[in-house]
Amino acid sequence: MSNDKKNNKNNRRDFLKSAAIISAGAAAASCTAGSAKITPKRNLYLPSKNKTVMGLIVPKMDTVRIGWIGVGRRGTNLMRLMCNIEGTGIKAICDTDPKAINRGKEILSKAGREEPKIYTGSDQAYKDMLARDDLDIIMVVTPWRWHRSMAVDAMNAGKHAFVEVPAAFSIEECWDLVDTSEKNQKNCMMMENCCYNREEMMVLNMVRSGVFGEILHAEGAYIHELRWQMKDMTEGTGSWRTDWHVKEGANLYPTHGLGPIAQYMDINRGDRLDYVTSLSSPAAGRDIYAKENFAPDHKRNQHIYHAGDMNTSIIKTVKGRSIMIQHDTTTPRPYSRHNLIAGTDGVWAGYPQRIALDKDNPHKIGGMSYHKWDKEVEKYYAKFEHPLWGRMKEEAKKNGGHGGMDFVMLWRIIYCLRNGLALDQNVYDAAAWSALVPLSLDSVKDRSSSKDFPDFTRGIWKAAKPLDFKML
Amino acid sequence: MSNDKKNNKNNRRDFLKSAAIISAGAAAASCTAGSAKITPKRNLYLPSKNKTVMGLIVPKMDTVRIGWIGVGRRGTNLMRLMCNIEGTGIKAICDTDPKAINRGKEILSKAGREEPKIYTGSDQAYKDMLARDDLDIIMVVTPWRWHRSMAVDAMNAGKHAFVEVPAAFSIEECWDLVDTSEKNQKNCMMMENCCYNREEMMVLNMVRSGVFGEILHAEGAYIHELRWQMKDMTEGTGSWRTDWHVKEGANLYPTHGLGPIAQYMDINRGDRLDYVTSLSSPAAGRDIYAKENFAPDHKRNQHIYHAGDMNTSIIKTVKGRSIMIQHDTTTPRPYSRHNLIAGTDGVWAGYPQRIALDKDNPHKIGGMSYHKWDKEVEKYYAKFEHPLWGRMKEEAKKNGGHGGMDFVMLWRIIYCLRNGLALDQNVYDAAAWSALVPLSLDSVKDRSSSKDFPDFTRGIWKAAKPLDFKML
Repeated sequence: MSNDKKNNKNNRRDFLKSAAIISAGAAAASCTAGSAKITPKRNLYLPSKNKTVMGLIVPKMDTVRIGWIGVGRRGTNLMRLMCNIEGTGIKAICDTDPKAINRGKEILSKAGREEPKIYTGSDQAYKDMLARDDLDIIMVVTPWRWHRSMAVDAMNAGKHAFVEVPAAFSIEECWDLVDTSEKNQKNCMMMENCCYNREEMMVLNMVRSGVFGEILHAEGAYIHELRWQMKDMTEGTGSWRTDWHVKEGANLYPTHGLGPIAQYMDINRGDRLDYVTSLSSPAAGRDIYAKENFAPDHKRNQHIYHAGDMNTSIIKTVKGRSIMIQHDTTTPRPYSRHNLIAGTDGVWAGYPQRIALDKDNPHKIGGMSYHKWDKEVEKYYAKFEHPLWGRMKEEAKKNGGHGGMDFVMLWRIIYCLRNGLALDQNVYDAAAWSALVPLSLDSVKDRSSSKDFPDFTRGIWKAAKPLDFKML
Repeated sequence: MSNDKKNNKNNRRDFLKSAAIISAGAAAASCTAGSAKITPKRNLYLPSKNKTVMGLIVPKMDTVRIGWIGVGRRGTNLMRLMCNIEGTGIKAICDTDPKAINRGKEILSKAGREEPKIYTGSDQAYKDMLARDDLDIIMVVTPWRWHRSMAVDAMNAGKHAFVEVPAAFSIEECWDLVDTSEKNQKNCMMMENCCYNREEMMVLNMVRSGVFGEILHAEGAYIHELRWQMKDMTEGTGSWRTDWHVKEGANLYPTHGLGPIAQYMDINRGDRLDYVTSLSSPAAGRDIYAKENFAPDHKRNQHIYHAGDMNTSIIKTVKGRSIMIQHDTTTPRPYSRHNLIAGTDGVWAGYPQRIALDKDNPHKIGGMSYHKWDKEVEKYYAKFEHPLWGRMKEEAKKNGGHGGMDFVMLWRIIYCLRNGLALDQNVYDAAAWSALVPLSLDSVKDRSSSKDFPDFTRGIWKAAKPLDFKML
């Protein structure tokens, strides 16, 4: 490469960087009215006198002593899996529903575990559990509206918080998790299980191995038809989740798609989510479903469903990459998390799994490049299986939980805690990934104007090392 | 349905409408700085004393007398097909390249057509051809930068203009086409061939038949790896198209995906494109390709490629629907136009063709709905084949041209002109679909703030009837 050319390239990079900064300033100046709701003082971030929790390592635990909040549909599944993991003790369980408490007791008893202490009777009962001094971590597997406050209360009570997705529903809530984690130097991990799925972990390994070249673009989604949950009236996920579709909402549940992509792109560890724009289709499907399935005077027919059936968001990272994230739990269409990652040398896509690599393109010789998808992906698993799955595969298959990823996630959490390793997901990930919930809504309400992600790491992302899934 | 419920619904609709209007006003008030480049005076539109050309019917032609500008890669293919259509006379051809002129003459001679008049020697030679009084229509099959001016000059010379995609590259150019078409009461049809593809026409028929219920969301794309065109240096598409990647650009080529979707959604005929937000990945692939394929001092290595490799745009329609459109001609990945259309009762997707309908869902009885794609789509073609394809199939197969759609398009154009029917695509479609080129760039440059589509129909869209592909 000539020196001129090199200079051109460096100029280009500098140009792109400064263009981004100028454009950020201009947007802030001209559109403050629209952005006012996103706590602009927090944009980018307030400095803090507390120490970062990036890479936080806490003292090794011999047995991880667990306080468990929530034994509903999801909590039950996770508790069953946790009972198959060595070095864990579920000391206490908390739920407002007596049936859930009995279910939890039965799981533990069947697994030959000790009888847990029970906390129930009010939705504040969990606070009594948090006051115990024999718990290391708190599992928060409750309806969404409790995630943040229970995680915050757990950390303030000196426990590490493990919370279901999404961890928070407003930018203020995201900052609350970050501030509390830093203040107490306690872990707050959002349990994004899809980051532990075999496909996503293999793709992460391929990305790190440079198979796709320079990473440019990714797509993730939660497309999962869940209208049937509207029949849950007194218990089950739909009994509370349906209400979120009644409120105004955009991407209600972004992290299954965004989490793995954030790991592919080293988000918070070398790159950062910069801004997002979001747009929703009309809300129509739940209204129709209610009419078809419930009497006219039924509760489900008294609502107006406001959250658009399909939400599409596009995110720019500070390094300039693009991420498209969709949410649709209403339209009758097949499940997909997309899981598409595209780089200068090729692309991977999920649903169904397929790959196209420039180097394999048989048309290349002829000069024209009409790439074909290769769906024979087993050879990639043979070569790029993530070491964690290489180690866990048999156990994951035996235990299951969304194809094994739930078990791998719980096993990995316990492994890190018992071996003095930093967790794979920290509070900055929980905050950045969950922030798409409020930011997508702000954008949808503001005629899809773009909204800035706060820098929850307070600048630490620039020097933070890529996630390594360290094993001993 | 109770009256209360009905009122609620009506209120919801009214609410959505007024919310959209208020939000439009607010955006205009707070973000004028960012939107200034989009000729805000034209937003929504200026009234005109000229008559609309919506549904324009022009006097029947016995033989359609054609002046042909451009006999390059694309022009050659289209001319061969046109020679197989009855009732056409290619009277004159124009190109600056003597090889192209000879190619055109040879095509006509081989087809037993009369010897055409030749216009060449300068890039203004086409104007002499336009001055003839024995031409009905002008075919504009030239590099992009000529599309608008040649179409405008053709209409001002009293001819109907048929122009390749995209028809225009700025909002001013879009208005120029509209104003000129209205002033002269001449057709300006952008020849969006994908609207005539068998799949898209069948899906249009399914949409109209209500198969997908209320239409909510659609996805289209031009994902077509064309880096190899960078080797075209003196002739061929890449010799001029590569330069568009050097300039700043976002979605350079949106209409193959957007055109068919606009027809599914009755855009300009009951609904309208309202606003768009757009975001690009970095531009990396063409730089790498140039390094790998050309000497350091080669022209292709002297450029900085500015247009991001992958551009993603999301459009809101006035009725609230969402459309995602992507453009990527650089990343090594398989061809796709997506062609996804989702409604309350199901979804169709292309690449590969597949469908999921709520009514066919075998899990519905059990209460849980994990839909599966049905890839056996032939039964849908049997039932919903578009009448135009039903009539043309054998001829389309025989003639070809992107699987037959080029032939069907040309045949249909000639059919309408000879039978006194309105064309399927008018200047409002050309303008609205092409407008995504400049609006996506405005948005990308403005940190993905949303940009308004002008109403090129000047309000006529509200009463315009859906496209009917009328046959006699």
